[in-house]
Amino acid sequence: MFNKILIANRGEIALRIIRTCKEMGIKTVAVYSTADNDSLHKKFADEAVCIGPPPSKDSYLKIPSILAAAEITNAEAIHPGYGFLSEKAEFSRICAEHDLKFIGPSPEMIDAMGNKSVAKKTMIDSGVPVVPGSDGVVDDVEEAKRICKEIGYPVIIKASSGGGGRGMRVVHEEENLQQAFGTCKSEAKGAFDDPAVYIEKFVQDPHHVEIQILGDQHGNVIHLGERDCSLQRRHQKILEESPSPLMTPELREEMGQAAIDAAQAVDYEGAGTVEFLVDKDKKFYFMEMNTRIQVEHPVTEEITNYDLVAEQIKVAVGEQLEQKELKMRGHAIECRINAEDPTHNFRPSAGTIEVFHTPGGHSVRIDTHAYAGYRIPPHYDSMIGKLIVSAPTREDAIKRMRRSLEEYIIEGVKTTIPYHLQLMDDENFLKGEFNTHYLEEFNFNPDSN
Amino acid sequence: MFNKILIANRGEIALRIIRTCKEMGIKTVAVYSTADNDSLHKKFADEAVCIGPPPSKDSYLKIPSILAAAEITNAEAIHPGYGFLSEKAEFSRICAEHDLKFIGPSPEMIDAMGNKSVAKKTMIDSGVPVVPGSDGVVDDVEEAKRICKEIGYPVIIKASSGGGGRGMRVVHEEENLQQAFGTCKSEAKGAFDDPAVYIEKFVQDPHHVEIQILGDQHGNVIHLGERDCSLQRRHQKILEESPSPLMTPELREEMGQAAIDAAQAVDYEGAGTVEFLVDKDKKFYFMEMNTRIQVEHPVTEEITNYDLVAEQIKVAVGEQLEQKELKMRGHAIECRINAEDPTHNFRPSAGTIEVFHTPGGHSVRIDTHAYAGYRIPPHYDSMIGKLIVSAPTREDAIKRMRRSLEEYIIEGVKTTIPYHLQLMDDENFLKGEFNTHYLEEFNFNPDSN
Repeated sequence: MFNKILIANRGEIALRIIRTCKEMGIKTVAVYSTADNDSLHKKFADEAVCIGPPPSKDSYLKIPSILAAAEITNAEAIHPGYGFLSEKAEFSRICAEHDLKFIGPSPEMIDAMGNKSVAKKTMIDSGVPVVPGSDGVVDDVEEAKRICKEIGYPVIIKASSGGGGRGMRVVHEEENLQQAFGTCKSEAKGAFDDPAVYIEKFVQDPHHVEIQILGDQHGNVIHLGERDCSLQRRHQKILEESPSPLMTPELREEMGQAAIDAAQAVDYEGAGTVEFLVDKDKKFYFMEMNTRIQVEHPVTEEITNYDLVAEQIKVAVGEQLEQKELKMRGHAIECRINAEDPTHNFRPSAGTIEVFHTPGGHSVRIDTHAYAGYRIPPHYDSMIGKLIVSAPTREDAIKRMRRSLEEYIIEGVKTTIPYHLQLMDDENFLKGEFNTHYLEEFNFNPDSN
Repeated sequence: MFNKILIANRGEIALRIIRTCKEMGIKTVAVYSTADNDSLHKKFADEAVCIGPPPSKDSYLKIPSILAAAEITNAEAIHPGYGFLSEKAEFSRICAEHDLKFIGPSPEMIDAMGNKSVAKKTMIDSGVPVVPGSDGVVDDVEEAKRICKEIGYPVIIKASSGGGGRGMRVVHEEENLQQAFGTCKSEAKGAFDDPAVYIEKFVQDPHHVEIQILGDQHGNVIHLGERDCSLQRRHQKILEESPSPLMTPELREEMGQAAIDAAQAVDYEGAGTVEFLVDKDKKFYFMEMNTRIQVEHPVTEEITNYDLVAEQIKVAVGEQLEQKELKMRGHAIECRINAEDPTHNFRPSAGTIEVFHTPGGHSVRIDTHAYAGYRIPPHYDSMIGKLIVSAPTREDAIKRMRRSLEEYIIEGVKTTIPYHLQLMDDENFLKGEFNTHYLEEFNFNPDSN
């Protein structure tokens, strides 16, 4: 086992990794920017090294400083957490060159999954379902018609140079294709100075469902069930749960196997997440694979009783994964608590936390780096903690989440707690009837709580 | 289901009951003394009624005030928590007379278990093992010899008027009996002005192991496994765990059945605990039955996933208990965090909590009514919270407890956290080798942390 691990991250995930290291008897090295001088990850690690000022490119993204910190503290491995350097193949490569074990996949695996078109091709080759579509740019309407007939309506025409929801057009029937195709091309030309478009099957009202997987160095891959992360604002997940309200044992079996196939296609090592879109007919399509621990990993931990960071560390030293039957107990929900003002379009609410009182009791988990007196640095993301609850049923978990949110007292900054509280009373959420677009039309009502 | 429950208690248990009521959609009424004006149970309940000043006899023990509070708020039931009025048969009786459901057993059941000699007789009649001994006072040494031969050595001679460890003498062999018997009688005469003594089998190096049971109004009783509460200081439990380090599946089956028999002997309703002594040969003996929720109930909740307060409420409205196979998952430990100074013989440390930062992460549970700025009233017991962790194995749970204790930051008052930290490194504790006397010789070393 490692004697000492350097954690190349900050905030709640750095603290969370320190916790598991302590439980495993591994010494920890925190790195911190000058803006994080009062941070808990610095306080709770065995050693801490300042690696520069904000912004991140001068500290948390600055590979030479992190390597130097590892060298002077004799760390044997680096845990990258999520974000920052966690999915930079270059960092994984440089760690290996410096005889530091990168706790995560090899640079080749990161590259294989980081390039979306390579990843899609790999999945097709491994028999993992992907969203069907044109093989690249579609030049004329006849070709478009042929493709659409093949993949079936509805389809979505997308500008090759578009992104972030712009330059897209959904077509439900062939009779509308010709006009839509022309319009989309000219809009693309107008907006991006590039008329190139491609076509994909339009996945209607999809859920975002991701499968947690673990791979070891001996070719074993297991899956730990799914998380439903459909509730997003501007592509940012804000609430995650497991099991997914749409899941059936058969679908889990199928998606779990697809995720294992995806991971085995690249000899995957470590913890990873295979993200799928699931349509209303419960057909699923590979979206992408994240080659790191996810923010929302605790919901899986709470119902499977795995410690995913411990598993990452164990496979990093070469241990074999235990092949045992997956047991999921109950239902878990995570709410991301962000220092944002939901009454002002979720603008970040910087400042000092004056009162910080966390909820407690049965099956309530708090993962946070915040505390009373903590000044939230303006340089990083606005998440100040995660509230995770579990209970025997989804209904019970929602009730537990509601009472926990009511108990959570944060003064000094605005938070997303009132928004989550409103969600806990939302009829569609209660019924599990939502999709990845649901929160676009969910308006925050400050008087609802 | 009840619409509204009054909680006739304070501190963490009042808060814990409020949490479950909120999750069940039941309104809550807190009662509080003038010394608890800033308490969280007052803050988080739907309504709160002041019932008088400290000491407790003028408020938390004052039945007319509590009944009046229930009346003016239209509460339908009263949850007594632990301590205070929870095991007063009279209170249960008066509640019934006022058409208030007492959440707990009937006055008859409380009486049947509250009188130790009646309880012992009931257990013998039901075939539950009790510590063998004389049937009352032993007058002469010949009778003593006969009894001791029957029950087997070692025995303990106890002064009938003694108590709290005084007026006792252990005899290991018959040849020492005559002298010990005489000495004990004359010591008893000298100390208590009453030479009467009785004899019991001496249970050597026992563990305190208690079985959690639940009974409904339809005659069903189930058990939820055991808790080992051997670690006590002056008969006060300070750390509890489940499973017990000495437990085997066969012994659990046997003790569980004995506890069920004990409860069924009195048609028990509600949550209760049957306490046993277990000797080194794993023979067990009934000690007493507690007819209320216990301080240490969370360790059972964490590994069985029952919400015991919810179960209490459900059986109180007449629901039937589900008969299902008991599943215990992993290992749970609870440390009682007391505002006491372990460097000064655990004297209470009153004052204001200035900094209060609780640990978090996977399988860490916090049950506390304390917060930063909370002034601990001097009128009540010194427990300011409970820290409960669970993990797949005992070893893992101890590691998790150690890191959680290290994360727990309380400034302004002294606490038992350093004492617990030392215990987490104690070799005998790690091996599970301890008994009810163990902490008598466990000396706190303030430099050990």
